[in-house]
Amino acid sequence: MPRFFMAGTNLAGGRAYIRGQDAEHVRVLRLRPGEDVVICDGAGTDYRCRLVSTLGDEVEAEVVEVTPCRGEPEVRVTVYAGLPKGERADYLIQKCVEAGAARIVFFDCERCVAKIDGRSMGKKIERFNRISQSAAEQSGRGIIPPVDYIHDYVEMLDSAMKNDCALFMYETGDGRVPLREAIESAGDFKSAGIITGPEGGFTLAEVRLARGAGAVLCSMGERIFRCETAPVVAVTAVMFAKNEL
Amino acid sequence: MPRFFMAGTNLAGGRAYIRGQDAEHVRVLRLRPGEDVVICDGAGTDYRCRLVSTLGDEVEAEVVEVTPCRGEPEVRVTVYAGLPKGERADYLIQKCVEAGAARIVFFDCERCVAKIDGRSMGKKIERFNRISQSAAEQSGRGIIPPVDYIHDYVEMLDSAMKNDCALFMYETGDGRVPLREAIESAGDFKSAGIITGPEGGFTLAEVRLARGAGAVLCSMGERIFRCETAPVVAVTAVMFAKNEL
Repeated sequence: MPRFFMAGTNLAGGRAYIRGQDAEHVRVLRLRPGEDVVICDGAGTDYRCRLVSTLGDEVEAEVVEVTPCRGEPEVRVTVYAGLPKGERADYLIQKCVEAGAARIVFFDCERCVAKIDGRSMGKKIERFNRISQSAAEQSGRGIIPPVDYIHDYVEMLDSAMKNDCALFMYETGDGRVPLREAIESAGDFKSAGIITGPEGGFTLAEVRLARGAGAVLCSMGERIFRCETAPVVAVTAVMFAKNEL
Repeated sequence: MPRFFMAGTNLAGGRAYIRGQDAEHVRVLRLRPGEDVVICDGAGTDYRCRLVSTLGDEVEAEVVEVTPCRGEPEVRVTVYAGLPKGERADYLIQKCVEAGAARIVFFDCERCVAKIDGRSMGKKIERFNRISQSAAEQSGRGIIPPVDYIHDYVEMLDSAMKNDCALFMYETGDGRVPLREAIESAGDFKSAGIITGPEGGFTLAEVRLARGAGAVLCSMGERIFRCETAPVVAVTAVMFAKNEL
């Protein structure tokens, strides 16, 4: 069943009025009166609606069922990723949203090749959020995971530490715990921050800061993941451990 | 440390002679005598070699250590994927190889939009295998997972059933088991076949054939994965369950 987020929809008196791009989308899909669509409020609730009229600027539908959105995992995972170059960032967003991440935060660090400057920032973040929305719609999520950017590395760590557990993926060095062990020893957490590096990885100083802040340094086995693959694999590991797969 | 597969290398009397593209690669990386590279035989053994001479057509190195390749998971996962369109196939190969798949088999089925005909087959499969090799080198694998194509759906199922367990990812319908439960009830398996559909999913007839053959129908939670994401997530789930993460 086609899914839409509320943005272009008004709900009033058991009716849904779909406008703008979403109305356009209904027409592109050649949906007819009598067919059902799901309108999600982006806060975990789904409205199943039966189309009444698809002509004109506004598509009208009747709300037939209101249910909690089943596509939303109970555990809240935020991905903190060193900003990668070009398409890798797009890919990272799309796949992490599919895998169940609740939020994606890119950050700057020493070995980041990709940089966002003040001028390009707004547009880039806007594009990132559109990618998230489209992935959320396609995969049946109940929220649109926001995509943000934190320039300062220490501020990023502060934010990550606000989760019940903070897991720092590090591909080399001593004192690391296998990711599975780290997840299982974290106990009954409701939120997790997953921190992954850019193409060139983290510097030792950055690793020390993360350890100092209280993040758990994790290994992901002996294989080395690309920077856009590591967060998807780590989110999947958490979802598996939390019975969301 | 840079890794190469044996293809362009001769090992003789404790020396390695690197030729062709790999020798070119050594020069591109500006590696100098005294530096180490790893040459992997593609069958699970790593040869750490110290460069002796990097001039001329042939790079010469001395074998300093022979060890089992640590990047190779113990469980052998074969991905059977309905052939997706264009770049999705490339992506699927790259990410599944990173995630630890031992082999990738594309197959044709009713809703496959992408088709390989006899003429384009050879070239396409060759390209797919190059993508696998490059991903295997980058991620530190001990083998180059072969990429094949099986035209016939029933033949594909026969091949999948030769694994200790065969898991069929299906996004809808009754009688499915959550992926985690399916993996955990499969006991002490050494090999697994993961079967995933193309963009349009499987037909009911295909699902029945899979069930009839003995594959376990699995759900992957309530989210719907793209056809190129599902196999990566499923391989990761197996790796997590088998302590490879």
